[in-house]
Amino acid sequence: MSFAPANKNFEAVVRELLLGMPFLQWLGLSFAHIAPGEVDFVMPLRHEITFDGQAVQAGPIGSLLDFAAGAAAFTLAPEQEMLATSDFTVKLLAPAIGEKFIGRGRVLSRTRSTTVCRADVSASKGRAEKLIATGLVSMRALSRPSRQ
Amino acid sequence: MSFAPANKNFEAVVRELLLGMPFLQWLGLSFAHIAPGEVDFVMPLRHEITFDGQAVQAGPIGSLLDFAAGAAAFTLAPEQEMLATSDFTVKLLAPAIGEKFIGRGRVLSRTRSTTVCRADVSASKGRAEKLIATGLVSMRALSRPSRQ
Amino acid sequence: MSFAPANKNFEAVVRELLLGMPFLQWLGLSFAHIAPGEVDFVMPLRHEITFDGQAVQAGPIGSLLDFAAGAAAFTLAPEQEMLATSDFTVKLLAPAIGEKFIGRGRVLSRTRSTTVCRADVSASKGRAEKLIATGLVSMRALSRPSRQ
Amino acid sequence: MSFAPANKNFEAVVRELLLGMPFLQWLGLSFAHIAPGEVDFVMPLRHEITFDGQAVQAGPIGSLLDFAAGAAAFTLAPEQEMLATSDFTVKLLAPAIGEKFIGRGRVLSRTRSTTVCRADVSASKGRAEKLIATGLVSMRALSRPSRQ
Repeated sequence: MSFAPANKNFEAVVRELLLGMPFLQWLGLSFAHIAPGEVDFVMPLRHEITFDGQAVQAGPIGSLLDFAAGAAAFTLAPEQEMLATSDFTVKLLAPAIGEKFIGRGRVLSRTRSTTVCRADVSASKGRAEKLIATGLVSMRALSRPSRQ
Repeated sequence: MSFAPANKNFEAVVRELLLGMPFLQWLGLSFAHIAPGEVDFVMPLRHEITFDGQAVQAGPIGSLLDFAAGAAAFTLAPEQEMLATSDFTVKLLAPAIGEKFIGRGRVLSRTRSTTVCRADVSASKGRAEKLIATGLVSMRALSRPSRQ
Repeated sequence: MSFAPANKNFEAVVRELLLGMPFLQWLGLSFAHIAPGEVDFVMPLRHEITFDGQAVQAGPIGSLLDFAAGAAAFTLAPEQEMLATSDFTVKLLAPAIGEKFIGRGRVLSRTRSTTVCRADVSASKGRAEKLIATGLVSMRALSRPSRQ
Repeated sequence: MSFAPANKNFEAVVRELLLGMPFLQWLGLSFAHIAPGEVDFVMPLRHEITFDGQAVQAGPIGSLLDFAAGAAAFTLAPEQEMLATSDFTVKLLAPAIGEKFIGRGRVLSRTRSTTVCRADVSASKGRAEKLIATGLVSMRALSRPSRQ
């Protein structure tokens, strides 16, 4: 799949919007890749999101997946268009154990009203990386309030 | 649906396990109802989980739903059995705007290997309550390590 | 939840539309209940939809669920509005074994663009009925071509 | 992802099992590709599965996706192991209009109890092919009754 961004300035817009979200900040997400229809985030291991000090819980993994998919969708949005998650599905494939977690969001389709994304989450430890979750996310377009 | 708990002491076990989870603590969840196959949690509004200071993001709503479903499933677990989320699906029905959020998990079916739950999330403001999300959660049984 | 139909003639419209669908006819679905936001269908056991002459496969159970949800959504559609499934999720809770299968669709929320429904499927044998599947379905609104 | 089949004779076993299913026969599915963890099926356009003589309904698209994923999962099953769908999620990305439909199932992860697959459906017309649906399917392992 290849997509053309509707907004030439998409990278700066996506970075500013996402990095301004307090929950994304709390999770410690940083951008690892950004391109039209594609965003990767890295999430560090933190005790606060684990079940037992080791395995990350389903909720934060779902949030990483939702942020990666949402940001990927947002790279293709025209100026002034805002997006909101309308649903997300997460399958946990293996225990979420690792030093850091990479969430990769990819746009599968885009219409005026809806963008559908796939997102995968891998756990990395040293140089090894393992797929631990996959999901699908639908985003709906909202009009974006102009800032003054 | 009505279910009999396998562990008479289920309420104390579920409370201790869930309230010990750091991410549940960070979200500020408190039990509002606990019965065999049923758990309700209340989550307060916090700036840190909102998009814009007002609407809560999809990730924390998914986490509330996952915790309510997981705790409901855990009320029916035999002693020594541990459960882990294998997948969850969340549909956002309306903006997550309110003073607090009630997550209601209900067990739909239970086999030795898998428990399936429905969970709903309502936003409440004053005396009004509105359904803002619904989802389905599958939990798989793990053996529980004995504590010494 | 209670909903008011936008089209007073909703029952006749829904019956005509659904019963005209060739795949619904092939599955042998008949209406058992129709009300604003609610439709139940009965699907008979047929050898052609089973895995082994006994248990119905996941696909036809998903179709029953999709038809029940879609018809429930359609009871609330204004005249001239057409709906199409944008996604559906099905959880199989127990083997689909029975003499007939009842699919119950219920609208959870409706906006101008999207209707979200829950649907359950039960297997019945004699007077016993057992929940064997549950799911969530999103329908999106299309404009309906006028007939001349 | 690459997987080793547990049963060297996997191709013959999968073909025999799947092609013996009456609903798969009714839909007219034929194998287009079979390898460890991978199965593609082709489904012809038929009036009986369309909404209006043109666009295929969500249910049959979900069935194609479920068969492709299930067959992919089954390529990795040890002898005597049977699999059943425990859940499937389908997102319809574009109208299901075409001359034939290709369902591609790919295994993402496999444990002793559960196999998780992704499946995509494309519509083809002449030499053009378009992604029209994507989904995730979980299969659970059952023991397989021996044949005598």
